[in-house]
Order: sequence, then structure tokens, then C-alpha cells
Amino acid sequence: MTDRQRLKELGQQLRVDAVRAADAAGSGHPTSSMSAADLMAVLASEHLRYDFDSPEHAGNDHLIFSKGHASPLLYALYKACGVISDPELLRYRKLGSPLEGHPTPRLPWVDVATGSLGQGLPIGAGVALAGASVERLPYRVWVLCGDSELAEGSVWEALEYAGQAGLANLTAILDINRLGQRGPTRHGWDLDAYRRRVEAFGWHTVEVDGHDVEQIDAAYSEAARTTDRPTAVIARTVKGAGVEAVADQEGAHGKPLSDAEQAVAELGGRRDMRIEVAAPTSGGVRQRPGGAPVDLPTFAKGEEAATRDAFGQAVAAVGTAREDVVVLVGEVADSTRAKSFAAEHPDRFFEFYIAEQQMIAAAVGLQVRGLTPYAATFAAFLTRAYDFIRMAAVSRADINLVGSHAGVSIGEDGPSQMGLEDIAALRAVHGSVVLHPSDANSAARLTAGMAEHNGVSYLRTLRGKTPVLYGPEEGFRIGGSKVLRSSAEDRVAVVAAGATVHEALAAADALAGEGVAVRVVDAYSVKPVDAATLRTAAEETGRIVTVEDHWPEGGLGDAVLDVFADTRSRPRTMKLAVSGMPASATPEEQLREAGIDAGAIEAAVRGILRQDEAPAAAGS
Amino acid sequence: MTDRQRLKELGQQLRVDAVRAADAAGSGHPTSSMSAADLMAVLASEHLRYDFDSPEHAGNDHLIFSKGHASPLLYALYKACGVISDPELLRYRKLGSPLEGHPTPRLPWVDVATGSLGQGLPIGAGVALAGASVERLPYRVWVLCGDSELAEGSVWEALEYAGQAGLANLTAILDINRLGQRGPTRHGWDLDAYRRRVEAFGWHTVEVDGHDVEQIDAAYSEAARTTDRPTAVIARTVKGAGVEAVADQEGAHGKPLSDAEQAVAELGGRRDMRIEVAAPTSGGVRQRPGGAPVDLPTFAKGEEAATRDAFGQAVAAVGTAREDVVVLVGEVADSTRAKSFAAEHPDRFFEFYIAEQQMIAAAVGLQVRGLTPYAATFAAFLTRAYDFIRMAAVSRADINLVGSHAGVSIGEDGPSQMGLEDIAALRAVHGSVVLHPSDANSAARLTAGMAEHNGVSYLRTLRGKTPVLYGPEEGFRIGGSKVLRSSAEDRVAVVAAGATVHEALAAADALAGEGVAVRVVDAYSVKPVDAATLRTAAEETGRIVTVEDHWPEGGLGDAVLDVFADTRSRPRTMKLAVSGMPASATPEEQLREAGIDAGAIEAAVRGILRQDEAPAAAGS
Repeated sequence: MTDRQRLKELGQQLRVDAVRAADAAGSGHPTSSMSAADLMAVLASEHLRYDFDSPEHAGNDHLIFSKGHASPLLYALYKACGVISDPELLRYRKLGSPLEGHPTPRLPWVDVATGSLGQGLPIGAGVALAGASVERLPYRVWVLCGDSELAEGSVWEALEYAGQAGLANLTAILDINRLGQRGPTRHGWDLDAYRRRVEAFGWHTVEVDGHDVEQIDAAYSEAARTTDRPTAVIARTVKGAGVEAVADQEGAHGKPLSDAEQAVAELGGRRDMRIEVAAPTSGGVRQRPGGAPVDLPTFAKGEEAATRDAFGQAVAAVGTAREDVVVLVGEVADSTRAKSFAAEHPDRFFEFYIAEQQMIAAAVGLQVRGLTPYAATFAAFLTRAYDFIRMAAVSRADINLVGSHAGVSIGEDGPSQMGLEDIAALRAVHGSVVLHPSDANSAARLTAGMAEHNGVSYLRTLRGKTPVLYGPEEGFRIGGSKVLRSSAEDRVAVVAAGATVHEALAAADALAGEGVAVRVVDAYSVKPVDAATLRTAAEETGRIVTVEDHWPEGGLGDAVLDVFADTRSRPRTMKLAVSGMPASATPEEQLREAGIDAGAIEAAVRGILRQDEAPAAAGS
Repeated sequence: MTDRQRLKELGQQLRVDAVRAADAAGSGHPTSSMSAADLMAVLASEHLRYDFDSPEHAGNDHLIFSKGHASPLLYALYKACGVISDPELLRYRKLGSPLEGHPTPRLPWVDVATGSLGQGLPIGAGVALAGASVERLPYRVWVLCGDSELAEGSVWEALEYAGQAGLANLTAILDINRLGQRGPTRHGWDLDAYRRRVEAFGWHTVEVDGHDVEQIDAAYSEAARTTDRPTAVIARTVKGAGVEAVADQEGAHGKPLSDAEQAVAELGGRRDMRIEVAAPTSGGVRQRPGGAPVDLPTFAKGEEAATRDAFGQAVAAVGTAREDVVVLVGEVADSTRAKSFAAEHPDRFFEFYIAEQQMIAAAVGLQVRGLTPYAATFAAFLTRAYDFIRMAAVSRADINLVGSHAGVSIGEDGPSQMGLEDIAALRAVHGSVVLHPSDANSAARLTAGMAEHNGVSYLRTLRGKTPVLYGPEEGFRIGGSKVLRSSAEDRVAVVAAGATVHEALAAADALAGEGVAVRVVDAYSVKPVDAATLRTAAEETGRIVTVEDHWPEGGLGDAVLDVFADTRSRPRTMKLAVSGMPASATPEEQLREAGIDAGAIEAAVRGILRQDEAPAAAGS
């Protein structure tokens, strides 16, 4: 068999197995798999370098299916590589099978979850960045993209980023099969439309017939030879290629073939060819570097400092202790104070300009390589990348997010710049941690703590300065809280975080002058929230007022209410949050207008105490 | 004075007033305003058509400051147009002033809020779409963009969309001032880098010196003459132009000039020139068309139908009754069933391919023109446009969002396709409505109800079929609920929405067989939630189990807990939600694995009853 014949046969085998997997599952995307089968056959046979026995091998290439719905093709490829069996393939999409409808890292050879289109290429750019600029290893990153997903702006953020960064180790394989979910794509088979756009963004391009194995092979070789910029292989393909009933047909997306048996026959029947993937040429098994003790910045009690400043100095210190720490920003290194890291570790600091999706995607890509990323922007603008954060959880990614300019306390800039939904959004990410410190020392400690924690961790920082409340020796743990005012006479517990902690302290002091003892809890860990401390506070005071610089939905107040969901005799609670749309005003005016300042807390405490005194309300 | 002199003087006036406004405020972005002053002076004087006495005039052009931080320039322009006074200008960013730090529609001439960069151009494309394809009116849309924001993928979604749609009524004015928030932009003054990219996306381009009023004037004329595609005026400008201390200087972003008085003198002092903006040539005051009665689809009780199907048929019916209804999709018209509308009203159906940010932005743009948009995609993929949804609320926009494929009940496709955080995210949008019907008739009614409601409304639909529970005559209101099982003996109330309503009914029936009477509440309106019905249920049963196909944070359970926040004697509650990361499985298996199926509800009911019986727990 000539090489050409072998590769064509291999492509057919991948098609056959993709058709069989979807048929066994009763769902899936065989036609989207069939268009890219030859592209993957040639890649795995001739160009990929990967040690399947050692997915952690530092020299392994990375293959990312940005078009994650082509999972039958990926699994067919894994079968051809000898790492999954035919029975395993046929358990595709079944309960308990790691061969999910869209790939996830439950399989050790899958770096990241895909299935939300337009994410694989930006993440791949992050992996390529690690190789080119941090690890300086010669592995290559291959990303298979569908044509439909090229409509996503995130893809163009990636093309712009990788083009300017000159990531020659990144190859995008564009499977231009002309048909999307419900009909023709925007540009159909106008390969030149893609070429013009991609080249304008600084990439090298090669157009190929995506079913001509020699052209494909030559294109990959050309990509490898192109050392100054990334390459896009723009492949004209046929969706459902190889089976006449579905080839280039509308209405055949996302469903098994109606006659799989006939299709397998038409494709030449089952085969059991094995791909011998070449081993990587360099690098051993990747290891997380051991960390030295972190010399965190400290702040004197009573001093005023912004938590964003503390974050900046702390992440710089963590970066000094740990070489795996990298920092990513979206043109707001100044506002977020990530610039402190840039000053000390410029080689591990990455600017993504105002492209938050690419920034988060790159963080996911960098952690694929074992690095520990912190990605910082305004809390409000993390919403721009919410789908990427959601998917990071599906990817089981370890990323640290930092959102500055929390809430109305930023002042004059107005609601577009205020993070007011960020706690709700980030709490609703699987396995996430949400931290919102009120002073510089706690912010510094928690910044360091995030590096030790797996999953998606989020630190919410303040624009303005706040008094330092804690000594530098004080510990802060994820899931903890601090009781700042406490006595046996406490009649109400005020639970706050961030800016509102200081308002709560002022209110408690004022109320103490009136003879009303109030407990103050700094719930700096909003998720997980410190249930034990809150339960004690509830038992001892009977009443809880929560106060947060955030919309009323999904924030600190809801986290506290959740603690008391399953007990009948709960504290009377009152939730203070931002309920009206803010405008411009000074920070002090904003807190007052939003009803979350000391005065509002005092009124709430008096109100909740009155409720218990009012006979009509007693039984309600 | 020659025209040239007059325009140059006008530009200086705008600079002077921008400097004064920021100086009076003590914050703001004067230098970002100064770069674009000449661009705006020429536009308003020579090309804009706008009746400031009648912002609702149908023939008015639209001017959108995508770089919303240049608000001092916009307000200086309004002053020159005679619609705000100098004292009003100097109340910029002050409490109560509608001249906010970033523009919002609190000013009648502002269409949409900006300040989250990269949104103005996609929204402008939506406004231009309304003029070109729905209203067929000759107004023009002018969007002022900064260079930094061109890094946002959403801008490239807009360039692609408008380029392909040939929106010749749209002109993007790119203020290439070379400096971003913290230093040089990616491409600096390489105008050609922008030109290549923008042209590749099908736009006409004109490069100009952004301080040469004649070049600017000629470029706008060229834009107006270009009738087959949109035009980008790529203007080389100087940030802080006109004042040597800040001109083209780093470190001068986002702050008042240190010596405003000197700067005003350097700019030639205060002026009081008035711009006579030309009136529109056509169109009267826009009026919302009156709606005919809606002939909604009906479904027979006991029949099985998917709520997504009901949405599709209902929105088509609403579109028949109301000509202002438009539907937008992101290549999932099939999955979301928006295709039913496309079949009946193809001229009001718009395909954005897989570009959710542009889709939502276009919805915002279309409602600027008084149209009533429904934008539909998978619930999971609305997260891609979360920043646009957040900002839509700041824009006081009336948009209807539809998210299909809610929760684990979708089955095999896996977590990437499951909307599991959408309720949390959408509840945390100011003034939003969140609806999650369980049957086809309620879905149809609520689809129609959304059109009557102002603000951001969200309908969450199901992939799978569910039994029809309600007769077609039944009414469903925003803020309502339905009690599906009720008796005087009820010991627990199960509160559900969407798929879990059917699980709750099955559980109630099973428990009834054991002699345990359970109330079932269909909380189809998750925000606002029906507090009155929930309070009655709590009083009458003493125990509430919530069950939702969503993460535990920020969803239905939290909405219910919030109802009981401020009363001491609350029902014992238990929250069932999806807590583990799902994988692939059948819908039935998914509900079981997630612990939200009938069996889990039965166990929860038994458990909550046992808690009351256990002496140890009684006092907790």
C-alpha cells in the first residue's frame, strides 16, 4: 500500500468508526466528523508528536478539537492510536462513559473541554504561548476549527493575538465544509474569503482540498516550516464525505446516519488500521515547580490601602516565589494593579489588549501546561468572557480570576464600569471560589491562597482605599470569615464583604453609642461561605442583616440565606443590596444612594429589631 | 471665517468644553475626547441629520459613541448643538446629573449606554439593519470607535455582519490615537493594519488625518456616496490634541488635565459657537404600531410538546399580529425553533450565524428604532453575550431573550450545551424578568407576554417534550405561578419550574399513594417570583422543597429563599439542584444523576418530614 493509499484508507476507517459511534449512541455529529477525517488521518500519521502512554510528557504536541461536536472523529482517532477499544468507542455518549458528546479532560489526552464554539483556537493560542514564551519547548499546537465557528468574535481575537505574537507553533486547521447547523455558512466554499481575512490578521495560509491527503500533508509541512507566524490550513471539505446519502446535504447535521450499516459498507467496511504516532523529540514529564515561601507585602493596621494594590503587590510576590505563576491582562494592568507583577516578572506577564475572551482562553491554555495563571480586568468586564469561564469549569481548569472596580463604590464612572453581577455569575460556576476581601492584608493573603487552590477562583477587589483592619500575621482561608465586632449582648449580626465591611463597622460603632450591640462578620469568602460562623452568629443574635455592593440576586445575601435554608428556626434576616440603577456620583454618595452605607445599615438594624417588637409581625 | 476656519474653531471649542467638564468633575477622559473633537465637529456641522427638538423623529440619524469614555466630547457637542447649557455641562459626573461618566439614554439623544468597549459598533449595526431592512428609511448611523476597542472580538463580529449585509448606511469612525489606557495600542498609528483587516471584512475604507477638517469632510461625503457597503473612516489622531502637556503623552488617560486653565488658554479660550444640525429629510415621529389580537397556538392537555416548539409557533403568531416584532438567531433557528417565525416572516428574521454578541447587540439596536426583538440561542450560549445583556439593562433596552436547551434534561450532548447558570446570570440583570415554563401552553402565553413587557425579559425553554398541563384558556402573567396539586392536608410544598414540574407531579402522585399530601407549585416566573403564593404555601404546609435543573447558586431555590428572608418563622426548606458536573446520559438518567428527578423529590419530602420528627433537629 502506498502512503497515499494508507492515508486514504485511514480516513475511511475514521469515518466508519465515527458513523458507528454515533449510530450506537443514537445521537452525535457523524457528518461533521466525516468532513475532517482525512485532515486528522494525515495529521496523526505524519505530523503529530505525542506519547499516548505519557499524556504529561512535556514534549507532547496538543491537538484541540475546537469543533467539539466532531467528537466521534476524535474518539475514532484515539481508537486508531490504540488508546481506546472498540467496545469503549461504542459506549459513546452513554452514562458513565468518558467519551462524552463533546470532549472533556475526563480523557487524559483531551486538554480542554470544547463544544461551545470559537473557544478552541483562543485556548490553543494560550497553549502555544506557553511553549513559545514560557517553557520554550518545541511542541506544536494543532487546532481543528469548523467554518461556522469562525463567525465568533473570539476566533478573531485569537487570530489577532497569535498573529501579532508570531506564534509559529500554532496551526489552525479550518474544516470548510460549507454547511452549518441549519444550512449554508456565511461564506460557503469561498475559501478566499477566509484567506483574505486570516492573512489580514498576520497569518500564513495554505488552501487545500481537504480530502487530498498529499495536499494536506504538504500543507502541514509548510506550517512546520513557517517559523515567523502561525499558519492556517484552509481546507475545502465535504460534510458527510464518503456517504452519498449525506454528503454535502442540508438536514444531516447532528444526527446519526439513517442507514449506518449501508454507510459503513459504502465507506469500504470496518478496518483496524493502527496509527503509530511519533514520539516527542524533547522534554520529559512535566513537573510543577516547587514553590519557595512567599514574601507577601504587609500593610500596617489603620493605614489606608486599596485591595487592588494589595493584589498587585501580592501576585508579584507569589510570582517571585513560584516560577509557574503568569499574569494576563486586558489593557488594564494599571487599573487592576497587575502592573506590579509586570514590573518584576515582565517575561511572565502577557498583555491581551481589550480582548477579555482571549485573555481567559489563554489562561485556560497556560494552565493546560501546568502554569498558574492570574487573569485580571474590571469585575464588570469579566462578564465579556462568561462563557469561557463557564467552560473553564467543564475543562476542570485551574485559573485565578481577578475583577477590580467592584460595585457602586467605584464612584463617578457609572454603571457600565461597575461589577454588580459578578458574584452571582461567578458563584454559578461549578466548583468555583469567590473571594471579596475588605482590606489589604486579607487581599494579599487570599491572592496567595488562590494559587494553592484548584478550580476557578475569583478575587473581587476594590478601586478605592480602605482602612487596614487586620494585622499581617492574620490568616485567611478559603471558606473562612472574620468576626470583627462581637459581644454576648449582640442583638443583630451584620454580614458584609469588601467595601460594606467598613460601612458595617461604622454602623456598629454608631449603634453601640445607642446601646445596641451589633456583631460584624467580614464574609470575605462568599463561596464557600463560612456557614459555621454564620450559624453561631444566628444562634447568638437571632437576626442577620446582609449588606453587599452588588445586585440583590445571587450575591452575598443569597449565599447567607442558603446557609439557613434547612433549619426551621432561622434568624430573621434582611438583605441590603443595590436595587436601583446607579449613575455617576462620588463613592460615598453611591453607597448612600444604593442604601448600603452605614446609615442604611443602622436603619436596617433598627428596623429588624422593631419587627420583633411589633405584635402583628411576630407570627409572620 | 472660512468653513475650514469655522470647523477648526469648533473643534477647539469642543476640546475646551471637554477639558472644562472633566476639570469640574475631577475625573473623566478629556484626552480621549480631544483626539476625536475635529471628527465630531465636522460630522455634526456638515453631515449629521438630527432634529434635537424631536429625538423620536423617524428620520433622525444615530450617533453612537462606542468609545463611551469620550463622554466629555459628546456633552460638549450637545452644548454646541444648543441642547444643554454650560452649567449643565459643568455638572458632568455629579450626583443627579444625566451627564454620566459614560453616556446613557437618560439623555434623550443617547440611544444606548456605552462604556463597555466594543459594543457601540455591533449595536450600530443593529440600528443600521433596522433602517436598511425593516423601516427602509434613509437615516444614517455614525459610530465613533476608539482604537483600543478594536481588539474586542465583538467589533469583528460587527464588521463581518455589516460587511456581508452591505449596510451602506453605517459609518464607523475609527479614532486611531495610538494610546490606550496604559500605553501604546497593538497597532499604534499603523493605519494600514486596520485598513487591511477592515477591508478584508468587506468594508470600504478611507484613511484621513483626523485633525484635517477638509479630509474629514471629504471622507464622510465618500461614505455617503458609497452605497453598496459600509464605510470605515480610519483617522490618524493625536490623543490630547491641542494641549502640549498631554498631546500624544502616555500617562494622561482618564484624568483631568493638571492645569485646565492653561489648557483652555492654549486651545484659544472659551467659545460659544453654535452648530445648526441639519434636519432629517424624511419621516415623521416614530410610532409603535398597534397590535392586533394574537392568535396563539394551542396544545391539548395531555399531549406532549416541547416548550421550544411552543415558543417558535407563538413568536410566529405574535409576529403576525405585530409588525414591530423581529426575530434574531445565531445559527440555531432549528434547535431554538425560531425557524417557525422565519417561515412566516422571512423579512423580519435575521441570521447572525454563530455570533451571539452581535445578535444581542443587534437586538438592542433594533429596539432603539422601536422594534420588538426576540433573540434566541441555547441558554448556555447566552453566556457568550452576558456583557451585552448587562449593558442592555443600563441602556434601558426592551429586549426579549430566549434560551433553549435548559439544564441537564437535554441529555447526551453534555455540559457544554447545558444552560445551568443562565437563571443566576439573568436574574442578576437589573430589572430583568426570568420565565421558565413547563408546558407548551404556558410557554406560548409567556412568549406573547414578553412582547408587552419593558426591560430585559428571558424565556428559558426545554429541548424535550413535556406533557401539556394547562388548557389553552389559562392565563399566565409575569410574576405569577400555578398551584398544580393542593389540599388542606398538604404537608410539604414542592416548588419547581420547567422540566422539574413534571418530576414534582410524579413525586406528589407517588407520595399521595403513601398518604403524604404534597402541594406542587409551578413557579414559571422565576423573577419576579410569586411571593404571595409561596407565602401561602409556606403557611399552609410549613415546608418547602425547591427543585431546579440549574446549579444551586442564584436559581429558583435562591429566589424562593429570598421570599422568606425577612420573616422569622419560615418554612423549613430544602433545595434540590444540580451539584455535580454532568456528563453524557439520557435525559432521564441526567435528572436522576443530578438528584432532581421524581425519586429525589420523594426522598427530599420524606427527609424534610423526618427532620421535624427528629428531636435533635427540632431546635436547630
